[in-house]
Amino acid sequence: MTPEAEAEAVAEPVAEPEAVARAALTRVLEPGDRHGGRWLREFGGVELVRLLTGPEGERGQPGGVGAERLAGYRRRAARADPVRDLAEAAAAGIRFVVPGSAQWPSQLDDLGDARPVGLWVRGPADLRAWALRSVALVGARACTPYGAHMAQTLAAGLAERGWVVVSGAAYGIDGAAHRGALAAGGATVAVLACGADVAYPRGHTGLLDRIARQGLVLGELPPASHPTPSRFVQRNRVIAALTRGTVVVEAAHRSGSLVTARRAQDLGRFTMGVPGPATSGLSAGVHELLRGGAATLVTDAADVVELVGDMGELTPERRGPVLARDLLAPQTARVLEALPAGRPADVGAVALASGTGTDEVIGRLYELHSLGFVERQGDGWLLGRRAPDGGTDAGASRRGGG
Amino acid sequence: MTPEAEAEAVAEPVAEPEAVARAALTRVLEPGDRHGGRWLREFGGVELVRLLTGPEGERGQPGGVGAERLAGYRRRAARADPVRDLAEAAAAGIRFVVPGSAQWPSQLDDLGDARPVGLWVRGPADLRAWALRSVALVGARACTPYGAHMAQTLAAGLAERGWVVVSGAAYGIDGAAHRGALAAGGATVAVLACGADVAYPRGHTGLLDRIARQGLVLGELPPASHPTPSRFVQRNRVIAALTRGTVVVEAAHRSGSLVTARRAQDLGRFTMGVPGPATSGLSAGVHELLRGGAATLVTDAADVVELVGDMGELTPERRGPVLARDLLAPQTARVLEALPAGRPADVGAVALASGTGTDEVIGRLYELHSLGFVERQGDGWLLGRRAPDGGTDAGASRRGGG
Repeated sequence: MTPEAEAEAVAEPVAEPEAVARAALTRVLEPGDRHGGRWLREFGGVELVRLLTGPEGERGQPGGVGAERLAGYRRRAARADPVRDLAEAAAAGIRFVVPGSAQWPSQLDDLGDARPVGLWVRGPADLRAWALRSVALVGARACTPYGAHMAQTLAAGLAERGWVVVSGAAYGIDGAAHRGALAAGGATVAVLACGADVAYPRGHTGLLDRIARQGLVLGELPPASHPTPSRFVQRNRVIAALTRGTVVVEAAHRSGSLVTARRAQDLGRFTMGVPGPATSGLSAGVHELLRGGAATLVTDAADVVELVGDMGELTPERRGPVLARDLLAPQTARVLEALPAGRPADVGAVALASGTGTDEVIGRLYELHSLGFVERQGDGWLLGRRAPDGGTDAGASRRGGG
Repeated sequence: MTPEAEAEAVAEPVAEPEAVARAALTRVLEPGDRHGGRWLREFGGVELVRLLTGPEGERGQPGGVGAERLAGYRRRAARADPVRDLAEAAAAGIRFVVPGSAQWPSQLDDLGDARPVGLWVRGPADLRAWALRSVALVGARACTPYGAHMAQTLAAGLAERGWVVVSGAAYGIDGAAHRGALAAGGATVAVLACGADVAYPRGHTGLLDRIARQGLVLGELPPASHPTPSRFVQRNRVIAALTRGTVVVEAAHRSGSLVTARRAQDLGRFTMGVPGPATSGLSAGVHELLRGGAATLVTDAADVVELVGDMGELTPERRGPVLARDLLAPQTARVLEALPAGRPADVGAVALASGTGTDEVIGRLYELHSLGFVERQGDGWLLGRRAPDGGTDAGASRRGGG
């Protein structure tokens, strides 16, 4: 991590009392807790923490749950130490992103009261920008070689088209998806059911470190938290909500990946499935989705992009005011200025020209891509034709200095 | 062929001048000729033959085509010898079935002016009854072992459920479908793009003979006619129209099987596709159909029957007056009477009890099945619970004698 990125990582949560309160609440509320979500909406984080740690029986206490359950919340709130958590997380390169902050992916607000309290995020990239152009690839842990091949090929193809590949870092399809994106020099996000500092599964320790260097590793749970079955289920809702669409590569009947797919559908996201041999039990769940019309059949990255790329309302141009160049973070602006006019450049050349590390350059390029400033072309990057303030004639419109 | 079946085969066409005229017209009009179909509708077969063989320039001649094309029709009409064709066909066990006759499958009327002039039919079964419970299985000639396995398994599963498997007798998927149905002791129909006496492809001579013994081999073209590319295309419309639905097992982009599938869809039939590996070019056409929503994904015979079996309006009970037992052909009634009450019997036992050959028994059982008199149960046949005049209590309702 560069010094700048590290400074950013620490700055955000510590500055805001609401962020500190929400950091505490990630030790109190389990992911997806709708009671907690309602209280947060009613009281705000600071007041909710005060009520849960103040004298018992005080007027205006959060309600709607039994006394025993409320006592559990209070016990966990009493033990929470968010300042220590935030400091330890920062030391491990993990920042805490809360709803409403600049990096918060507002798609997660679609989850209503089940919206995450906040996200613990490890890695250099801008989560909000990346999520705008992201697709989830999910599937079976015990996948077939065919499934692994499809996940890897799809992920590489999506990365080549400038899309961010989101998955759950599990063995099988998830791992193949992350590896496919990384191998194509692309962007990938691992959403965990544990702390962002916990290497789960253990065999993916190296993979998670690579993802955190080149992409993002994140989760709802505070540092050192371990996964549980219900946390896996709730993690899937984050994957579904964060992305524009979910592709199921291989899934047996009644598998967790199908739950993710149906969540995506309920949230109005695109749900897609990769077919396989009708004789394969690991394609049976996907075929079930496709047969019922709950998902669209896709066979390659072009199919996926044809679907999710259509959803114009999520592209920043149509979403509200265009982000002006002057509002780009300094590191991002530096990468944009390093791109030559009229021809594509590879990541190495941009890194050299901008004086930035290659891992960070990748993150910034994907961020610029999601904002419409640059486009991906094969292995290289090009100033975008649809750049908000006239990217094609980049020499003329480029800011002075830099 | 039994002596009775042979007598039936000869009787129908020779008795009717309209049938003789239509037999002549199968030498004049190419399959799917809409001009010819319109003339047939306007003039009827007998008058159309008279006009085409009468003096040139006569008033009221068929119009709408150029002089040269009309001359071609007249040349072919002059050379046609339907009485000889019908006699030679009968000698080869082939009968000629025309619209409106008892064996005519009225689904073909959905083709409008492209309706076949008539069908040359080889084999013992009742075409009309069989078509009511039939499904087409089509696909690539150069199929993969996976495709052949799927076609064979689907066909066997359909046969076990009492459905008739229709295909085109080509190498690859077609052959596997016919073989799967035959191996399950089931009913199958080969629709050819040539004369019903022509073994095409040559390597399927034995298979076609087996189909003609246990099922039906049929086509629009008179004896000794050879296939042409346009005849293959037109043959596909007959397959699509004859059946309740078409399943595409393997098909490359832009293949003939996709044309059949789209014809089926245009005709309001069910269109289905068997998925395969996304990496297989021979599944690409099927995936294209499925992706566009033009077909429903199916992975086994149960999936197929769940779709096509729904179409209640085609089952005879709901379609109009129930066929009374007394109206069954004598051979069919004899097979019905040979079924024991309350337990299933296999084909061999029914053949023995009815004094009928096993191949013919299969045909009659499928006919009785389509009329609701019997049901298939595993390898055996059972008196139907929904039999039109009380099949369950078969001992009581069975006709005397027999």
